Amino acid sequence: MARIRLEDIAAHSGVSIATVSRVLNKPEMVSLNTRNQVLHSIDTLGHPHPNRFNESSRPRMGIIVAQLTNPIFAHFASSFASIASAHGLIPHITCEYPGSGHEAALVESMAHPPYQGVVFVSGHHSDSTSELQIYKKLQQRRFPFVVVNGPLKGVPSFTTDDKAGINLAITHLAQLGHKRIGLINGDEKYYPAAIKKREFLSACSKYKMKEYQVFSTLYSAEAGGQAALEAVKQGMTGLIFASDLMAVGALSSLRDAGFNIPEDVSIIGYDGWDITSELNPPLTTIQQSVDSICEQAFKTLVSLINGDTLLTHSLMFSPLLVTRSSTGVAPQRL
Amino acid sequence: MARIRLEDIAAHSGVSIATVSRVLNKPEMVSLNTRNQVLHSIDTLGHPHPNRFNESSRPRMGIIVAQLTNPIFAHFASSFASIASAHGLIPHITCEYPGSGHEAALVESMAHPPYQGVVFVSGHHSDSTSELQIYKKLQQRRFPFVVVNGPLKGVPSFTTDDKAGINLAITHLAQLGHKRIGLINGDEKYYPAAIKKREFLSACSKYKMKEYQVFSTLYSAEAGGQAALEAVKQGMTGLIFASDLMAVGALSSLRDAGFNIPEDVSIIGYDGWDITSELNPPLTTIQQSVDSICEQAFKTLVSLINGDTLLTHSLMFSPLLVTRSSTGVAPQRL
Repeated sequence: MARIRLEDIAAHSGVSIATVSRVLNKPEMVSLNTRNQVLHSIDTLGHPHPNRFNESSRPRMGIIVAQLTNPIFAHFASSFASIASAHGLIPHITCEYPGSGHEAALVESMAHPPYQGVVFVSGHHSDSTSELQIYKKLQQRRFPFVVVNGPLKGVPSFTTDDKAGINLAITHLAQLGHKRIGLINGDEKYYPAAIKKREFLSACSKYKMKEYQVFSTLYSAEAGGQAALEAVKQGMTGLIFASDLMAVGALSSLRDAGFNIPEDVSIIGYDGWDITSELNPPLTTIQQSVDSICEQAFKTLVSLINGDTLLTHSLMFSPLLVTRSSTGVAPQRL
Repeated sequence: MARIRLEDIAAHSGVSIATVSRVLNKPEMVSLNTRNQVLHSIDTLGHPHPNRFNESSRPRMGIIVAQLTNPIFAHFASSFASIASAHGLIPHITCEYPGSGHEAALVESMAHPPYQGVVFVSGHHSDSTSELQIYKKLQQRRFPFVVVNGPLKGVPSFTTDDKAGINLAITHLAQLGHKRIGLINGDEKYYPAAIKKREFLSACSKYKMKEYQVFSTLYSAEAGGQAALEAVKQGMTGLIFASDLMAVGALSSLRDAGFNIPEDVSIIGYDGWDITSELNPPLTTIQQSVDSICEQAFKTLVSLINGDTLLTHSLMFSPLLVTRSSTGVAPQRL
């Protein structure tokens, strides 16, 4: 194979030889778009100077998610990774587990070149009791980052409109004649859970529900399943869950206890996993617009990386109600 | 809060002050176990010399998975990340998407300190047509790594025993009276798919199946669903899928075409996602021992990192047959 020269890369990517050289040696001096063009040409043609180009300095993007066992976080991670890759950034994903140190240690592992920027998905920023020191440090150092599903002062945030989501769910149950409904929620120290609770109470009052109650528990299938049994025992006929994971636990615990879904009780999940259409019964759910959130969060992150002036903004993304057979007409009661 | 001194960390972790200092300044000179003890004490007590300890040099582990949209890979990534974290290594996960450069670029982004080692899950090593240059380079540089689900000469590998898995599936179908069965397989350039095909053909002959056929297609729900329709049209009554993802596509395509599962056709998945118990109908599947694979692969990686002499070995892990209601007695035929 012929040796690839800087000239070949320059011609292929339409930039000067000096620019190619800078991308190879001082990538931080070249704008992200130009760098991507040049790296794309290198991927296509091969490396010039095989012994000098250091792949380990190829620009990266850090993706910090709350966890990976819940498919919604795998979806966010995968969507960001895919978009970042298409723009020539190597995606590195991490999340917090016991022993890995605090979020600070995770962040520090990604908050320096060749990482160009970091996105947080449901990080500590979404916990109202959490210390925000690590984020403040990033802001002071002007390291580019954005946050998803939870606000953070002075930082662009991209969040599912949970107020709209809860309203969609309650309107759906009201139209089916439900008068006694429950919200199986996560810990309200998390902003999304707090918003869901507030909106649930306000909308239930607006719809003149006869009974309504919030059950605060853990974001797990087991906790969701147990809370569902408790809610049904108290006479609820329609249940909204703060996550599909919790709703999956309820499908299982209610079935084991002899309840029919939706004849005895209607179930609505939250997040919109792909697989919810194949559950037994197929799950009605509030679907987050994961790919749109990731695309717009990434665009903003790139603007920050390129040093563009940017009006700090927080965007809200409307979720969708996907109706399936886990919800039905309310059972007749005395 | 009182200032934390090196002495406090040393006393807490039971090592000398000099060792604490080395962990902070030259971590590569300290064995992984000792480093973890000291880092654990730092997590508990707080940082000494807040301005000198560089979190960005905390040891890391690289996890390279084939993709993240299939829950089996999210499970592997999450299990490795959890184990690595418990041992004081920050887990960084990456996977290949269009644009991120070749696997080589991903590997180079993790094949140097502070990364201590890398695990590959279904990487290019599991593709028999793939170039192995990147792995050879790692071996030459003596950078510690192990591979999962696919062999690699001279490298410790940890792999589900797919021969045993296919046998479990076929024995189950044979016991239910099925005589016409199909394997909906992935591309046989991948070692696991090649093993599945070979074992399927050999076991079908042993069990004197009247008809048996392998349908090679893509590892996706859509491809699985389409191949399932084709197989049923050809008279197959029992179908084994190379992944749960493909089986999920079949549940949906067969139902839409008016077939009942398992009355008309029995379905067996492969991988053993948690959620398979909640599908409609609950899916019989061959479950990989993900957590065992990850634990033993990690232990071996740590031995490599610590420079222990190690007999190169390849371990096989027996999968489990989990029977649920997607499989049943073969329908009567002329």
